[in-house]
Amino acid sequence: MRKGRLEAFSDGVIAIIITIMVLELKVPHGEDIASLKPLVPIIISYVLSFIYIGIYWNNHHHMMQGVESINGTILWANLHLLFWLSLVPFVTAWMGENHFAQVPVALYGFVLLMNAIAYSILSNLLIKRHGKNSALALAVGSGTKGKISVAIYITAILLSLVSWWMGFLLYVVVATIWFIPDKRIEKKLDHEPYAEEKL
Amino acid sequence: MRKGRLEAFSDGVIAIIITIMVLELKVPHGEDIASLKPLVPIIISYVLSFIYIGIYWNNHHHMMQGVESINGTILWANLHLLFWLSLVPFVTAWMGENHFAQVPVALYGFVLLMNAIAYSILSNLLIKRHGKNSALALAVGSGTKGKISVAIYITAILLSLVSWWMGFLLYVVVATIWFIPDKRIEKKLDHEPYAEEKL
Amino acid sequence: MRKGRLEAFSDGVIAIIITIMVLELKVPHGEDIASLKPLVPIIISYVLSFIYIGIYWNNHHHMMQGVESINGTILWANLHLLFWLSLVPFVTAWMGENHFAQVPVALYGFVLLMNAIAYSILSNLLIKRHGKNSALALAVGSGTKGKISVAIYITAILLSLVSWWMGFLLYVVVATIWFIPDKRIEKKLDHEPYAEEKL
Amino acid sequence: MRKGRLEAFSDGVIAIIITIMVLELKVPHGEDIASLKPLVPIIISYVLSFIYIGIYWNNHHHMMQGVESINGTILWANLHLLFWLSLVPFVTAWMGENHFAQVPVALYGFVLLMNAIAYSILSNLLIKRHGKNSALALAVGSGTKGKISVAIYITAILLSLVSWWMGFLLYVVVATIWFIPDKRIEKKLDHEPYAEEKL
Repeated sequence: MRKGRLEAFSDGVIAIIITIMVLELKVPHGEDIASLKPLVPIIISYVLSFIYIGIYWNNHHHMMQGVESINGTILWANLHLLFWLSLVPFVTAWMGENHFAQVPVALYGFVLLMNAIAYSILSNLLIKRHGKNSALALAVGSGTKGKISVAIYITAILLSLVSWWMGFLLYVVVATIWFIPDKRIEKKLDHEPYAEEKL
Repeated sequence: MRKGRLEAFSDGVIAIIITIMVLELKVPHGEDIASLKPLVPIIISYVLSFIYIGIYWNNHHHMMQGVESINGTILWANLHLLFWLSLVPFVTAWMGENHFAQVPVALYGFVLLMNAIAYSILSNLLIKRHGKNSALALAVGSGTKGKISVAIYITAILLSLVSWWMGFLLYVVVATIWFIPDKRIEKKLDHEPYAEEKL
Repeated sequence: MRKGRLEAFSDGVIAIIITIMVLELKVPHGEDIASLKPLVPIIISYVLSFIYIGIYWNNHHHMMQGVESINGTILWANLHLLFWLSLVPFVTAWMGENHFAQVPVALYGFVLLMNAIAYSILSNLLIKRHGKNSALALAVGSGTKGKISVAIYITAILLSLVSWWMGFLLYVVVATIWFIPDKRIEKKLDHEPYAEEKL
Repeated sequence: MRKGRLEAFSDGVIAIIITIMVLELKVPHGEDIASLKPLVPIIISYVLSFIYIGIYWNNHHHMMQGVESINGTILWANLHLLFWLSLVPFVTAWMGENHFAQVPVALYGFVLLMNAIAYSILSNLLIKRHGKNSALALAVGSGTKGKISVAIYITAILLSLVSWWMGFLLYVVVATIWFIPDKRIEKKLDHEPYAEEKL
């Protein structure tokens, strides 16, 4: 099976997910700068989720570049990932509209955790199909970064039930882990066709 | 006529359908876990419909891989399928928001039935165009699975007017029929370029 | 300039337009069949608009198959068409929610008229670029069908201010003109790479 | 890294942005022509933003035609541009629903300014990667037009706090600068594969 339509479909779904989040930025009734104030937590949530969805799209993009063929199980593993990504706009809005209350912050972390697990399942299936010594497997790496992320998410969910900002801070930490080292990976990418670790 | 844009357009429409369903998950006003409780039936409906749309996308994907050329009638048969798929978010929301009341559950089944019929029309037209001995015809198969699905849908619609859970259970059964045997088809897929039965 | 991204972008916008119309099918509060009754005019509007958008997508698809290269003016002529298409969901909803009142039915016709004019501008620019004897020009044809459509739209707009059903009937007539003869064109399509008249 | 999916993803996001703006055209309750009157400022805002998004899509399209390869930083610079573009529907709706009040008009200009800066960052990174003498660099040009736009946006934001129509008029001026000279660029485009200045 060819991967073209899987990429196109995933691009479509991720493009919609990243864009419909902005629909939660409800137009305020007032016309002064003060009427934007209640939107501040919603915008902060939106920025964080935009970065997360961006990271997933980037990683999905990189990983798929190394894929040579897929099968039905991989199609479903990919749909499973898209399912959990599709819940990001909902938890983003709930967290933002409740000004980072504890339960919404914890649920936000739960959805991030499920996304990380779904991505891990997808990348494991792809590596299994292509072989442990394939270019894909080398590019995806040992998955250490992904395991650290899962550990931080679980810590964050528990801590957010104590104090919301501890959870939120840890979500920012995970995003930073995935965002910053891109610079380092880039150098490899200029030499090799792709290089990616699993989330 | 080439099939490229038909695939791209169908991917776009199906990606939007599968994603806008999540907009029915209205953000609750409360910030505790209890405020999520009314969303449970909506989430269950969403999961079932996500799986159904995923099955249609997978089958459409497989079938189209064997297509060599299309014509105007096939374009319209495809739009006809997309029309009935586009009603899935509406019936999903109605069923979820009414906690699986009998009439919404029956209407949900009716839309699934129309989808199955529309898919059947599309695959018949494609087989007619490519010939009964074409690789496409062999891949799509005899359509037994599709006929069984139609029979179960009709039974489910009638039973759901007696008791909602009988209809709902049968919808889960049809989804399972299409979901599970993917494993078996997969092995064929690794040898042949595609393999698919009609829904 | 290559046409690939123009096709992809148009497919994306048209896919979204045809799908967001279904968001106007607001989920009713009741759970019986009677609570669906107020939705009947909205569903009728939706079906008509779905067919119209489908016709435009089909014709756009056919015409673009014959296109070899584009320029900035053509990009804007295409965006101009997408602008008028993007207003179809609005007028569809207004017409449906007001049970085919005279002014909404007339405005619906006005948007259809502007779409027809925008499509005509686009096809004229494409023919001008490819030459009057190009395969594209032969495929698009003399545009008689397009001119008849414009005349019917203007008549429909005026008549709908007298009685809504006269306007509505004429919109159905134009859709039928474009929908039915596809059978005839198809035979040509099986021999030639494309064949299309302008809307 | 190949540019195909970056283009496809950007097309998807821009197609959604340009289309969801029309969702702000809420269907009026009345059925006469007068009930459309409150929508006039919203439609004017929509037309302006549609043209702006159209300009960005055209320029993105042109610039990407000259791109040979990308890297992780460019992926993020592109996502950064998409982020600011995604805020256009929000500021468009706020400006339209408040009948061009001063603060919304100024904020609209701020989002346009950030878009121009994001586009400038993206084109600078692309030129850096391809070299100052690359076909891409020649096509994108010196960026004079982009710098003028930024200066006009800043002036417009400040003036709109004095009187809304001065800001609005300047936004129209910038759109015109980018819209009209397409004719001149076109001639170059017929000879060269692409030609574009940065916004």
